[in-house]
Amino acid sequence: MSDRSPHGVTAGGAHPGETTSTEVRRSPGRPASQRGMRGQNLALVLRTVAGQDELSRADVAGRTGLTRAAVSSLVDELIVSGLVQEGPVTASGKAGRPGRTLALSDRGPAGFGLEIGVGHLGACVVDLRGQVRVWRRIEQSNAHRDPAEVAAELADLAADARAESEALHLNPLAPVLSVPGLLDQRPGIVAHAPNLGWQDVSIEDIWPGPDAPRPENEANLGALAELWRAHAPGNFLHVSAEAGIGAALVIDGRLYGGARGYAGELGHMAVHPDGPRCACGARGCLELYANQDAVLSAAGLHNPPGADPVALLTDRANAADPGTLSAIERAGDALGIALAGAIGLIDPAAVVLGGAYAELGVWLLPRIRHQLETRLTVRPFAPNQVTASPLGRRGPILGAALHTIQAVLHNPTCLTESQSPEGR
Amino acid sequence: MSDRSPHGVTAGGAHPGETTSTEVRRSPGRPASQRGMRGQNLALVLRTVAGQDELSRADVAGRTGLTRAAVSSLVDELIVSGLVQEGPVTASGKAGRPGRTLALSDRGPAGFGLEIGVGHLGACVVDLRGQVRVWRRIEQSNAHRDPAEVAAELADLAADARAESEALHLNPLAPVLSVPGLLDQRPGIVAHAPNLGWQDVSIEDIWPGPDAPRPENEANLGALAELWRAHAPGNFLHVSAEAGIGAALVIDGRLYGGARGYAGELGHMAVHPDGPRCACGARGCLELYANQDAVLSAAGLHNPPGADPVALLTDRANAADPGTLSAIERAGDALGIALAGAIGLIDPAAVVLGGAYAELGVWLLPRIRHQLETRLTVRPFAPNQVTASPLGRRGPILGAALHTIQAVLHNPTCLTESQSPEGR
Repeated sequence: MSDRSPHGVTAGGAHPGETTSTEVRRSPGRPASQRGMRGQNLALVLRTVAGQDELSRADVAGRTGLTRAAVSSLVDELIVSGLVQEGPVTASGKAGRPGRTLALSDRGPAGFGLEIGVGHLGACVVDLRGQVRVWRRIEQSNAHRDPAEVAAELADLAADARAESEALHLNPLAPVLSVPGLLDQRPGIVAHAPNLGWQDVSIEDIWPGPDAPRPENEANLGALAELWRAHAPGNFLHVSAEAGIGAALVIDGRLYGGARGYAGELGHMAVHPDGPRCACGARGCLELYANQDAVLSAAGLHNPPGADPVALLTDRANAADPGTLSAIERAGDALGIALAGAIGLIDPAAVVLGGAYAELGVWLLPRIRHQLETRLTVRPFAPNQVTASPLGRRGPILGAALHTIQAVLHNPTCLTESQSPEGR
Repeated sequence: MSDRSPHGVTAGGAHPGETTSTEVRRSPGRPASQRGMRGQNLALVLRTVAGQDELSRADVAGRTGLTRAAVSSLVDELIVSGLVQEGPVTASGKAGRPGRTLALSDRGPAGFGLEIGVGHLGACVVDLRGQVRVWRRIEQSNAHRDPAEVAAELADLAADARAESEALHLNPLAPVLSVPGLLDQRPGIVAHAPNLGWQDVSIEDIWPGPDAPRPENEANLGALAELWRAHAPGNFLHVSAEAGIGAALVIDGRLYGGARGYAGELGHMAVHPDGPRCACGARGCLELYANQDAVLSAAGLHNPPGADPVALLTDRANAADPGTLSAIERAGDALGIALAGAIGLIDPAAVVLGGAYAELGVWLLPRIRHQLETRLTVRPFAPNQVTASPLGRRGPILGAALHTIQAVLHNPTCLTESQSPEGR
């Protein structure tokens, strides 16, 4: 991607409007076509500022083709909305009065990500530049707990994070919640989160207040974080693991949902079709070899309640514990077999390991690459086309926070006109 | 699809321009914007006529929103080009003079499909209504023969088919050639057709004349034929077999090529990863269980040279030969395992069996459905979402001929202005 921002936020790329219910409030006054045109120009100027450091208003005019007067008026509006800020006056060396450089604001509107994991809760606030400014995480098992209790604890964590951001002069926008489960077609409903034990849970119903976050699937958010922050190409397969295994397919810079919105199931691909029976009822599914429990169990490890199982695995693997290494390698072989099939079918430009897989990448990748080399012989997949995400397990919650920032960059009028990017 | 033509040609749907190098010649004279507008209106009128039987000019005006005068002028141009013809005068019962009904022409421009199979050569001509008018097929083994010899024989067959169509007042347009191989990025080059023994063969170089056909991959053409003729939904996976196994993924009414154009490889998905070694070098590939040779060999059958192996299998299966039935069922189980993985990953609306699989569908489908039912437990795939194509082994050559017809329906100016839909 050529328009990657130096701040880590993609200027163009995916349109969050494609995957969210972002709705823009219209202000009365100007006719629709004029408002629409100004909105497009605001977005153009904002993305131009996002796309490169140290541009002046004159530079923005040069790059966008808008007049300097129009750019000044648009920049003023973006500054008032808290989206853009001006730097110090620079002596440009050119004729005319010296310009001030423009940048996305590191104050004001910010993305707000929340996360319910099987073994943790999280909250984070990311500024418009894509920098993480507030980060809170509690390790605790949420499996088979009362969803309302989990929500109450997360709401406390969210309130703390909000207070901390306000002290930093940040204004967290409507939060997005990463959940390890399948979303319903109806917004706000977690249809099925087997590792939490949730079935048809409405976040609004369990949230102790009016500002319930909008839930999104963690694997999808992890893939979007990868797309937006981590320089991934526009066509890739993102495979991540926490308790389960989640995959997400990004095609032309957008999440691909399939005909029913169920695309991206990799955990129950048969790796050894006559193998042991999986909880899903089938035999030899990838999850039996490559999810967290499978690796812990093959390594002969038992994770104490409340402890971080991935830290346990990385500690043991770093200490060259043979049982742990062999369990991770077995997972890598199973992943490689499944990924070889997936790559043949969809021909992605890259495969990105996210979540726990990213943190185990140093041990997983050699086995995965070996399987791909052995199995994809006619149209080989280069070893460097499979990588571990630099975001690691932070991917989904970062994706949740960046989701809102992408919505603002794509359509700043949702803030300049109503101060809410979610239209509520 | 709601705009399916009663003649079997889709009015809207896929744009062949997306998958071919179709290029439109511009005639001088009118400014580009006027020519573009008229071209769009020609296409609109043509697709409206294609979309429903027995419309009058007044009906077309009513449906398109164009004036009756404009429609008449456009219809006249389409009639002169041989794309539309008028039926007899009908007493409409309405006020005004009686109208003539309009229809796509069953004379004039026609699609021309050619095919090189591992065991046959074929030529067919399809009129604008999608009806097959000329059909020629020779059973003969083409494996590891001199490509120029094969091309010479196909050129003779094509010349016979052309002569026969001309007697029917049809004008076959530039031919498209179905080949069981991988196409190169460079147009006209078959990069790799392992079952023919071809490597980097330029069709233009081996063709005995100036009118070399444009090669396309048979699995892709089979999928497009399914999309255009056989009422398939816009998101489906098409899996076909002749000597090899070919898959093609249609997303939103278009072939999905993947990052490098290699998407749709299913034959080397590992079904039993520790199974026997495949010619590709990997172990336990689907082709080892489910391609023609594998089924013949498991059934203990030897196909005489020049004979049709699929007819042999269907004859034996119809005679309830236990070895043949068990070999086909083994192929169905292997296909079901591979398809369960594919469905989980890409969530298609349907899976369509094409080619030889369609002809063996009555025996394959129960096993495939059983595997899908057993393996896709969380998000079941309904049994009727997997079907056998009614086109059977005619799919790829029909797709080749329909390719050109779709190009004309999408952009009739390529004919009205230059009489060549391929721009050469």
